[in-house]
Amino acid sequence: MTLIPTASPRANINQRRLMRDLNAIGRIGIGDHGAVTRLVFSIKELRSRQLLIHLMRQAGLKIHIDAIGNIFGRLDGREPKAPAVLSGSHLDTVIHGGKYDGPVGVIGALEAVRTINENKIPISSSLEVVCFIGEESSRFGFSTLGSSLVAGEVHPKDLTNAVDPQGTKLEHVLASLGITRRNLTSLKRAPKGLKAYLELHIEQGPILEAKKKRIGLVTSIAAPSRFKVVFSGRADHSGTTPMEMRRDALVASAQLIEYVEKVCRKFSSMEKGRVVGTVGAMKIEPGVINAVPGKTELSIDIRSTTARSKDRVARMVKRRAQEIASARAIGVEILPIREEDPVPLDKRLLRVTQEICDQKGIEYEIMPSGAGHDAMQMAKITPAGMIFIPSMRGISHNPLEWTDPEDIGLGSQLLMETMIRVANE
Amino acid sequence: MTLIPTASPRANINQRRLMRDLNAIGRIGIGDHGAVTRLVFSIKELRSRQLLIHLMRQAGLKIHIDAIGNIFGRLDGREPKAPAVLSGSHLDTVIHGGKYDGPVGVIGALEAVRTINENKIPISSSLEVVCFIGEESSRFGFSTLGSSLVAGEVHPKDLTNAVDPQGTKLEHVLASLGITRRNLTSLKRAPKGLKAYLELHIEQGPILEAKKKRIGLVTSIAAPSRFKVVFSGRADHSGTTPMEMRRDALVASAQLIEYVEKVCRKFSSMEKGRVVGTVGAMKIEPGVINAVPGKTELSIDIRSTTARSKDRVARMVKRRAQEIASARAIGVEILPIREEDPVPLDKRLLRVTQEICDQKGIEYEIMPSGAGHDAMQMAKITPAGMIFIPSMRGISHNPLEWTDPEDIGLGSQLLMETMIRVANE
Repeated sequence: MTLIPTASPRANINQRRLMRDLNAIGRIGIGDHGAVTRLVFSIKELRSRQLLIHLMRQAGLKIHIDAIGNIFGRLDGREPKAPAVLSGSHLDTVIHGGKYDGPVGVIGALEAVRTINENKIPISSSLEVVCFIGEESSRFGFSTLGSSLVAGEVHPKDLTNAVDPQGTKLEHVLASLGITRRNLTSLKRAPKGLKAYLELHIEQGPILEAKKKRIGLVTSIAAPSRFKVVFSGRADHSGTTPMEMRRDALVASAQLIEYVEKVCRKFSSMEKGRVVGTVGAMKIEPGVINAVPGKTELSIDIRSTTARSKDRVARMVKRRAQEIASARAIGVEILPIREEDPVPLDKRLLRVTQEICDQKGIEYEIMPSGAGHDAMQMAKITPAGMIFIPSMRGISHNPLEWTDPEDIGLGSQLLMETMIRVANE
Repeated sequence: MTLIPTASPRANINQRRLMRDLNAIGRIGIGDHGAVTRLVFSIKELRSRQLLIHLMRQAGLKIHIDAIGNIFGRLDGREPKAPAVLSGSHLDTVIHGGKYDGPVGVIGALEAVRTINENKIPISSSLEVVCFIGEESSRFGFSTLGSSLVAGEVHPKDLTNAVDPQGTKLEHVLASLGITRRNLTSLKRAPKGLKAYLELHIEQGPILEAKKKRIGLVTSIAAPSRFKVVFSGRADHSGTTPMEMRRDALVASAQLIEYVEKVCRKFSSMEKGRVVGTVGAMKIEPGVINAVPGKTELSIDIRSTTARSKDRVARMVKRRAQEIASARAIGVEILPIREEDPVPLDKRLLRVTQEICDQKGIEYEIMPSGAGHDAMQMAKITPAGMIFIPSMRGISHNPLEWTDPEDIGLGSQLLMETMIRVANE
């Protein structure tokens, strides 16, 4: 990929149209307090994909839907056989989510491509708007479903055991949609057919807002180490058991919770390998006011953009759990949940977007992504980049999720200009 | 009350009969894993009281049942009009409790009185075996119901709002048993009709077992300060929110949990005013692995046998909660649940039992009670004393609750000898 600087195209995306379509998607699955729920393969989610197909058709794109339901809308370039530039995100949501996590990237890419089409901006490579299915893990506990299949990162047989909270098997849902396991084996896109993948997304964090930047250029996607720590002490009567005879699992947990914060704060001040760590959930048994807690189960999430820092901190936390348990003469067990590797994004794609920002005088922040995205799967088969726009107060997965329409428009405009440059490189 | 030393009576309680009756009571309401459930005013609890009435009648006692269902079985002394010596406890249990918390004191007193009767041991004052209704708070959230009414410590109208978890009002339960509020106003026993109240009970704590003592002589009954601390931070994405931008309510809670232990350990080393403090329950919101906890609610129980120490520690914990919240720029609210005063038991009654132990060579521990008992109500109208016997591993309110039959027998024997001495003083 050689960077051939081109003049910035004159075309501007239509922010009003972009917001209209984004709001149309956002009304599908809307409930109380503006909460949006479009779980993967639900009727609501199917309706949002149908609306997208309609919008792609209106925009004059050639539509391809693969066996799992990923949607590709293509605008042919002057060299239709050259590798294509893809951009998109997802339309499914968590339970009671917001309207921007996902759709901003799909409709933002659609707006970019239809603006290019309308303005007859010359492009060498073809452009594709993509909507990946099932990016959120809320229904089947399986995230980035569609992009994992496209990247060849998951084997269809790994999906067969997934079950939703109602007890419905993913396999049966697929069967009811006429999708067999055999259909799914050919979803992987050949890397040679792809030039780049770009994803516009809300930050889902507070950094851009705090730094008063409207654009984030993403260097890498952090990955979590997730595990549970189970402390087994002894449940005792809260009135009759002297302090020195207790085996209180909750006080042990409190020490570990404080340690997670302390060690991550230490690592967060380092330029590289910034780490965040969270104890988000805890079960307490018996969990009544008049009993010393006998057993606790802590759910811990440690993330970093470098595997080395993440693994180091996870090891330190596990070691500390052992030390606390042994000092208190209680039991401890560590149960792994998930280990993933951070994904670096493409440096040259970042530089293209950065140059456009510099030329246009847009202030940006170069930053990692703490959350996972379809881009982390696509990065395995093609150079991938991400553009972030601010999230009000960092809120997401929540009906209060909000991004200024001006920022959504700016993100789509920047995405368009990046796609044009990359397609014409 | 003047102490007139008398020779120890020759009579010995019948341990086999005592255990037989205790086991007969224990089979009423027994379920899986030997768990016993006899909630106040349930059919099971009514059956246990009927069996007790039968046993009292067999023992030749005169039976009186008051309006709420407290049962008194009386053996007249040579001076029937002199103040009576009462001894007993309760037959109701928690949900999935054991068979000794309560019944040991009722059947232990019955065994003592019937042994006195059979052996024609001369007694001046009358003796009464008592079964108080509703000592456990498990059904209506109201503990020591029967003894509170007998002590005149609760006004019947205070009971009308009590509701059980199924939504049944205590008032309606009473009405269905033909009990009106008016019936309940005359339950208070006149202090001049009472000489003393003695209660045999399992320790429900680990001290006697740890110190290898078979008898505990109780100096006072601790009382709790119970309150909730609610920390209000901000729920954030666990991957995208830098450590320094978090308002994590759980880490704040962890600091407070550790502080409760620390300050109580400090006070537990003092001879007087020993304090125990427990965070037994906590709610966490949203309580998922990928979100920084935004809100927590801790249930805190601080107990001591001196009001001064208890109140001081409770104040320190509340102050610390404020400090933690203010250092973390999060909100905090303190919600009172219950404030009670510790109850000192009668020193002279303790000395009577202590002398008997010394004469018989029984090793005893002089100790406070961390748990509440009917004795704390009775202490308000008459000199009250308690005899503890060991609880295996301190376990109670649990099917694993266990006390050696030899210790139960010894407790009943010591109770009998104390009753004889006090009745003849």
